[in-house]
Amino acid sequence: MLTKKELKEYCIDARENYLAHISIDCVVFGFHEGTMKVLVLQMKDEGEWYLPGGFVLKNEPIEMAANRILKERTGLDEIFLQQFHVFGHPDRSKEHFDMYKDMLPEKENWFTNRFLTIGYYALVDFCDVNPAPDQFSTSCAWCDLNNVPPLKLDHTLILKTALDTLRVHLNYQPIGYNLMPGEFTMPELQKLYETILDKKLDRRNFQRRMLGFGILKRSEQLRKGGAHKAPYLYSFDLENYRAALIEGFKGSW
Amino acid sequence: MLTKKELKEYCIDARENYLAHISIDCVVFGFHEGTMKVLVLQMKDEGEWYLPGGFVLKNEPIEMAANRILKERTGLDEIFLQQFHVFGHPDRSKEHFDMYKDMLPEKENWFTNRFLTIGYYALVDFCDVNPAPDQFSTSCAWCDLNNVPPLKLDHTLILKTALDTLRVHLNYQPIGYNLMPGEFTMPELQKLYETILDKKLDRRNFQRRMLGFGILKRSEQLRKGGAHKAPYLYSFDLENYRAALIEGFKGSW
Repeated sequence: MLTKKELKEYCIDARENYLAHISIDCVVFGFHEGTMKVLVLQMKDEGEWYLPGGFVLKNEPIEMAANRILKERTGLDEIFLQQFHVFGHPDRSKEHFDMYKDMLPEKENWFTNRFLTIGYYALVDFCDVNPAPDQFSTSCAWCDLNNVPPLKLDHTLILKTALDTLRVHLNYQPIGYNLMPGEFTMPELQKLYETILDKKLDRRNFQRRMLGFGILKRSEQLRKGGAHKAPYLYSFDLENYRAALIEGFKGSW
Repeated sequence: MLTKKELKEYCIDARENYLAHISIDCVVFGFHEGTMKVLVLQMKDEGEWYLPGGFVLKNEPIEMAANRILKERTGLDEIFLQQFHVFGHPDRSKEHFDMYKDMLPEKENWFTNRFLTIGYYALVDFCDVNPAPDQFSTSCAWCDLNNVPPLKLDHTLILKTALDTLRVHLNYQPIGYNLMPGEFTMPELQKLYETILDKKLDRRNFQRRMLGFGILKRSEQLRKGGAHKAPYLYSFDLENYRAALIEGFKGSW
């Protein structure tokens, strides 16, 4: 939590530079070799946890704001960020309201505003990330998805909605370009899907369906050196991959 | 367009009652017997077209605001409205800004604010709707989807995004409960999908896939009176239908 002096300075700056009533929260999923995590911040003093977020500059497109916030917290640039939902219940910022309301008069107090928050999710390789806390937090760290502490405000709901959306998106949108090496085997790709979905998939169905999406190229080379029959290597067909990101997979309806 | 006096009164009311910087726009798709339309408003004087929309009351949940706006324009209550995207480019309201900026000083002028708009879509039977214009418009009417005039602001983009999203949603979410009679044949349901997708579907694949979703109940009765073999009648299994609205269809990944 900020001191009264810090809060006052922050509010002057915020009212001058940011759009009122709107915030952005980012759910950053991290994947590496079969493990999924989510990026969380720990609040100064209270030690409570929340998702990385921020505000929109008065003249900034919202996608740029989301990218700027993500870059500040992770060091990552040009990551695919997916807008997934606006959370707009009038009581969602009540905890902030109560925390800050006695520290400054309402007219000067940015945090006694009602905020709608736009949720974005990203999926990155957590080894590429340098987590950096913001001015409200003491740490920014990866947390195992099945062991997330209770989050402030409605951030538990935001995280759950992001994960549900990501799992649904797997059905009509490609994923994995920034998570897989340039060439990979089908079981390696299947492992990514199984980790996100948190369940085992049938090997034959997975392969048939993935190939049907038309976003994979099979290499002429097989992977060498294993004890088993050498598996085929695949890479993403980036043209089809990018088209499917926008239009969804072909061959659905 | 409003007169200066009307604008002044509107702005006083708006600043007192609504959240700044946020609006809602509704894409209301109308379906009836194989025809798709979209609901548009025609602006006073200028005669230009735009989508029905409005603002969020200072203490109103956004889903309630969307429902209120939809009810005011259509007379319909409790319609399934799907939030689909926030449009947040800083220049998106520039046309309104230019139109109203000389009529009132900036501090009093609601329409020289930057607005982010939250897009919602609905799909209704257009025979159930009583279109009603708002105070900025002379008419509210159905327009054929393949013959929509250029819309104000970014409303053409909002309409296109809504239609793209609806078509993608067909792959993992049920549709049609408020559009089909209580009992219907498989070809009647297929017609709904074909109209939304604007393409023919294969009869066998459609039936196999629809039944696979587990949201249909087959009646013991066949439809009588036709010249052909009597077709099976189906109805929606509302429990599974509602679950699939929230969780997506089973049996995807």
